[in-house]
Amino acid sequence: MNPVILLGEAQLRELVPLDLAAIDQVEAAFVALATEAVAMPPILRLDLPAQRGEVDVKTAWLPRFDSFAIKVSPGFFDNPSLGLPSLNGLMLVLSAKTGLTEAVLLDNGYLTSVRTAAAGAVAARTLARAATPHVAILGAGEQARLQLQALTLVRRIERVSVWARRREEAERFAADVSACFDLRCDVAADPHRALADADLAVTTTPSTTPLIDAADLHPGLHITAMGSDAEHKNEIAPAALAAVRYIADRVQQTRVLGELHHAIEAGVVRADASFAELGQVIARQRLGRERDTDITLCDLTGTGAQDTAIATFALARARAAQAGTFFINDAKTPG
Amino acid sequence: MNPVILLGEAQLRELVPLDLAAIDQVEAAFVALATEAVAMPPILRLDLPAQRGEVDVKTAWLPRFDSFAIKVSPGFFDNPSLGLPSLNGLMLVLSAKTGLTEAVLLDNGYLTSVRTAAAGAVAARTLARAATPHVAILGAGEQARLQLQALTLVRRIERVSVWARRREEAERFAADVSACFDLRCDVAADPHRALADADLAVTTTPSTTPLIDAADLHPGLHITAMGSDAEHKNEIAPAALAAVRYIADRVQQTRVLGELHHAIEAGVVRADASFAELGQVIARQRLGRERDTDITLCDLTGTGAQDTAIATFALARARAAQAGTFFINDAKTPG
Repeated sequence: MNPVILLGEAQLRELVPLDLAAIDQVEAAFVALATEAVAMPPILRLDLPAQRGEVDVKTAWLPRFDSFAIKVSPGFFDNPSLGLPSLNGLMLVLSAKTGLTEAVLLDNGYLTSVRTAAAGAVAARTLARAATPHVAILGAGEQARLQLQALTLVRRIERVSVWARRREEAERFAADVSACFDLRCDVAADPHRALADADLAVTTTPSTTPLIDAADLHPGLHITAMGSDAEHKNEIAPAALAAVRYIADRVQQTRVLGELHHAIEAGVVRADASFAELGQVIARQRLGRERDTDITLCDLTGTGAQDTAIATFALARARAAQAGTFFINDAKTPG
Repeated sequence: MNPVILLGEAQLRELVPLDLAAIDQVEAAFVALATEAVAMPPILRLDLPAQRGEVDVKTAWLPRFDSFAIKVSPGFFDNPSLGLPSLNGLMLVLSAKTGLTEAVLLDNGYLTSVRTAAAGAVAARTLARAATPHVAILGAGEQARLQLQALTLVRRIERVSVWARRREEAERFAADVSACFDLRCDVAADPHRALADADLAVTTTPSTTPLIDAADLHPGLHITAMGSDAEHKNEIAPAALAAVRYIADRVQQTRVLGELHHAIEAGVVRADASFAELGQVIARQRLGRERDTDITLCDLTGTGAQDTAIATFALARARAAQAGTFFINDAKTPG
């Protein structure tokens, strides 16, 4: 049997930086999801309420890739009190031909961060106006930084407004952004002021009550909502969702987990309405933005297709660089 | 962060033989499943029809164990033509307190074989008569051998009848059994003759049409049906199932994947009837066998709880033996 390749977080950070190649790889996954006979079962979710823990397992097979990923994403929200990060996890890469394990990517969630930020860039590239000088970011965590970084790779940004529930985090974010990206970054007093004259907004919070109302919408705005990946999370008010051109990463997921779910529940959007997916818009099967004055919203819940795309990308780079530790796994003990 | 422990198939075969300790560990999982606030989500299943491939992912959290397993079981049925086994896979062990990855058990499906055989022994110990000298085995693959081996650990067996679709495989099985277990083993011409005066029968085939009919039942018989773990598989005729005392490993699974599913579909068993689970019988919450003349049937579809039980057992043994390879996974490259 072939050896299993093991890669740790440090190696994966070197091999797979957030760059245009990663964004193009994730875009390819969205196109495949919309146009090919992809197999992507519903997310497996294990809840451990006593530990404030949860684990998501995602997978997808895409005909264009020789391998597929199975991703395990634990979130244990008491970890910070133990000096550990809340989110971690790993990806397994299996051969799509034989099912044999090709690689174990012990990325502690890093590749998920990259593919999630890359999806934000794909959404902006596909749906935002060509000129989006002013970006609003809601939330000030790691993914807020990465979303902004990904945007700078696909759009010329001149100014950032950031809002976060804890003002000191927004201030730290603003200082970081000014230093790292040479961009003016202001802290907004509330989400509404952050959005007031933004061209593009990205929501990256775990909020369970809407942050963006219908009153915050204005012609030309594009919103990428990436915070909601579970039933109880909600960043966009149902009335706002009903007023925009809505595009999902995967409708069968956003109906259950995303912003769409809340709008359907509130009765402002019909449950049986047909919604476009990001990959369909890229593949020109469905309409995205038609006019500069359109208001677009992309609802990202995270797909196994993105995981397969980024994991196969990481494995190919590791092989090219001859990186990683090989684990020979024979049934018989040697000798 | 703590290092991740890697164990390969050869090491796991040495650390976790099929023995009474493994059987007791799996029994504990069934008791927990019946009596504790276990979290066991439905199986995640990915189908790759073009490759004749399928992948099951199972998991369960049991309060009594400090860790939980996530098991990945691929089955790629064209693999033998490539000189590779159809079944392989691995188990991940995560901390139930922090979600951090503790171990990667690259067992190629070995631990699944052990926990499945152990479940057969638990079913026999719980439901079969005390004296079961004559055992019928349907199927002659690896799991048929392991089921018989597990039975010899909990019951005194004097004689075996084996049937398999391919007679030459049954003959090889019979020769192996005679040699390894010092037992008389006869090849039966059909399943009915194999069962004719058996005390205990184990079905281990991937059959999609029933092998055991109502006419094969006789007072005192216990049947363990472990072949059906998918919607289309079926070893027990609905009329036979309706005529026995039926016990499931997990009713919510057997209603969908197991023998019960076919009996409900055929209309011989009411879909809303209440069925006992193996763990409930062990914990004396539900009745199993009451009389020597009862006919009992245990429907095993395989549970994530068994995977968590065997994986935590393997990890504890590896730690005690200081076995395994340590993988230090820091975010920063050293130096």
